[in-house]
Amino acid sequence: MTNKGLLIVVSGPSGTGKGTICKQLLNAVSDLKLSVSATTRAPRADESQGVNYSFIDKQQFETMINEHELLEYAKVYDNFYGTPKKYVVDEINKGNDVLLEIDIQGALQVKEKYPEGVFVFILPPSMKELKKRIVSRGSETEDSLNKRYKSATEEISFVREYNYLIINDEVDMAVEKLKAIISAEKCKITEDVEEVITKFKEEMKC
Amino acid sequence: MTNKGLLIVVSGPSGTGKGTICKQLLNAVSDLKLSVSATTRAPRADESQGVNYSFIDKQQFETMINEHELLEYAKVYDNFYGTPKKYVVDEINKGNDVLLEIDIQGALQVKEKYPEGVFVFILPPSMKELKKRIVSRGSETEDSLNKRYKSATEEISFVREYNYLIINDEVDMAVEKLKAIISAEKCKITEDVEEVITKFKEEMKC
Repeated sequence: MTNKGLLIVVSGPSGTGKGTICKQLLNAVSDLKLSVSATTRAPRADESQGVNYSFIDKQQFETMINEHELLEYAKVYDNFYGTPKKYVVDEINKGNDVLLEIDIQGALQVKEKYPEGVFVFILPPSMKELKKRIVSRGSETEDSLNKRYKSATEEISFVREYNYLIINDEVDMAVEKLKAIISAEKCKITEDVEEVITKFKEEMKC
Repeated sequence: MTNKGLLIVVSGPSGTGKGTICKQLLNAVSDLKLSVSATTRAPRADESQGVNYSFIDKQQFETMINEHELLEYAKVYDNFYGTPKKYVVDEINKGNDVLLEIDIQGALQVKEKYPEGVFVFILPPSMKELKKRIVSRGSETEDSLNKRYKSATEEISFVREYNYLIINDEVDMAVEKLKAIISAEKCKITEDVEEVITKFKEEMKC
């Protein structure tokens, strides 16, 4: 019950299918806005500015860090990745919902800065399934596979910090659940309900 | 994230359309159980035992009060009305969701005894609309109409005690929202998430 939009943070270990879920959700919900990350790494051949990432240079990124213009950021090898705050805040204030697909460390940083967000954790039906999904990507060495399993095991404990858990046995069902969560969150009673009470009481006097 | 069913309490001032919403929800969600109230009043010609009410005598009702077998009860004129606890608890423990359509005073009593329930408040789009809906029933005297308006005005403040508010501008949309709330509540992270964490960690060891 608010005129503000929602920040929906979808996250989970890699290999849980959160990317596919978010893609389908964006196709299904036309007025949902996607938060695009900023990065200092160079665009790949199939990536475009502002679509996959907002590609900026290191100096610009460091200015954003210093000016507190990021909801979260991380340095991976030599590259920075982060979520610009302005876009998210502007859209939410306009009443638009914003989707943010992000890893667990990033989500936890966002939660510190924007606890009123809706934090959704995605898991596959089992760890066996997770392993299968990571392997089927085919692009990983055995070393990096083991690293991913290990980090998934550690990361799963962070589910406690989230609001919702979706077990992704079937993508369409998972998308429906995410849509239901957004719809329910819009009916949730928050402080803004005071406006509704006042409006109804005023009307009664007429 | 629980194996238990949900208790969904739908309530609001009279004339908000909560009865119609609940009827449609029960038709749409086949495995949803309806909590049937017990009463000491005599059945009307079109009412059947166990469908509209569980018709019991005063002595039985008083025993239920004394044995704490009711989630809530009220005395209206000379008749008792109440919600038997056993049915609700049994179904929830079996993993079935239970729907309880009830007035605001009743819902607040239920919340005290079962705070983990999902409390949904229904309102019409405006007080003007509420008046129109009450008048269109045609069965009320002016005196009882005024009483209903007055109690609706007082009752609206209790919305603060609920989890969700649905503005019933359009019945089908309101039913969809209620379905979304149920679906989202099933994804909500509760203490039971510890079981999921343990299960995944065990699987990782294999």
